[in-house]
Amino acid sequence: MINYPNGKKININNQKIIQKGNLGASLEDDLNKTNRYYRDHGIALIHKKPTPIQIVKVDYPKRSKAKIVEAYYKQASTTDYNGIYKGFSIDFEAKSTKNKTRIPLNTIHEHQIEHLRQVSYHKGHAYLIIRFSTFEETYLLEFESFEKFIKTNTQRSLPYEWLKKEAYLCESTYLKPCDYIAGIEASLQNKGVLTHVKQT
Amino acid sequence: MINYPNGKKININNQKIIQKGNLGASLEDDLNKTNRYYRDHGIALIHKKPTPIQIVKVDYPKRSKAKIVEAYYKQASTTDYNGIYKGFSIDFEAKSTKNKTRIPLNTIHEHQIEHLRQVSYHKGHAYLIIRFSTFEETYLLEFESFEKFIKTNTQRSLPYEWLKKEAYLCESTYLKPCDYIAGIEASLQNKGVLTHVKQT
Repeated sequence: MINYPNGKKININNQKIIQKGNLGASLEDDLNKTNRYYRDHGIALIHKKPTPIQIVKVDYPKRSKAKIVEAYYKQASTTDYNGIYKGFSIDFEAKSTKNKTRIPLNTIHEHQIEHLRQVSYHKGHAYLIIRFSTFEETYLLEFESFEKFIKTNTQRSLPYEWLKKEAYLCESTYLKPCDYIAGIEASLQNKGVLTHVKQT
Repeated sequence: MINYPNGKKININNQKIIQKGNLGASLEDDLNKTNRYYRDHGIALIHKKPTPIQIVKVDYPKRSKAKIVEAYYKQASTTDYNGIYKGFSIDFEAKSTKNKTRIPLNTIHEHQIEHLRQVSYHKGHAYLIIRFSTFEETYLLEFESFEKFIKTNTQRSLPYEWLKKEAYLCESTYLKPCDYIAGIEASLQNKGVLTHVKQT
């Protein structure tokens, strides 16, 4: 891809450009880029929710642009990502670890688990996206598998080897650096729910 | 209801307290309260998205509480509300007007219309919630009706009388000051999609 001065991007040799793990870009950046691709191509409609901010004081130096001069981060009551795929409600939280053998459970907060549980209760489809950044590998895990694990294990972390067996590996390409939708498709097929939707 | 010094609220006569239009509370407050009721009672899982903020400068007076000292409001790329009802993806934008005969179309922004169109394309269920505050009446309008109107009319506003015929009136009670879920239930039944979901 070449960035011309007019901003138009041209793929000079029509090759699919693949970069494993996207050379250290953050999981959030990768998901934003992937979600934009899904939206632009009518594949899925998934957005990251804005970070909730408690605004205390706003100045109005110009009427056109209010300036927030005192504000604080608030605890979110939901996960970061939700949206629609083929009519199904999709919801997930994304976490990254540098650890090579396991991801500590305390990186996944109780309110996020509770929200995913509610999504599942309301017949939505809840997931965790977990990246082992050292291996440049990202997995899509069904929330139901995660709940089963925490109910039947006393361990305070999810082992990498367990995740490798239980979760869907996301491909990484230039345009879709965290391509999780094939995992969701497979998951919905395994759950036997995909036949409810007419393919148009 | 009585506010005791310890903050505990007691309903002294166990009556259902009904206030028409909730005595001037904002539509946003009413929706937040109603959505909380829906969540607490397992009826639906609908959240308001946080307002997107562009953070420019953060101070760290204490490690425990970062203070944002320069930030600006950003244009949202979606609507304000989304979530799940009986497995269906629900998405809507809420608008209020003091006008007695019509709501101007310019209060509904192009990016919100575009987002609702995308929701509909991905087989989600898109709506507008419109309040005529003078009459203390709130309506749930299917996005498809709205699109049909703007395609076949040159008017730059939705008439109150048209909305009364086309949309579902939301009841207002103390605990659910903008009770729109019966409208969504009726809308999903009219669309013939509700039979897809098993009632458990």
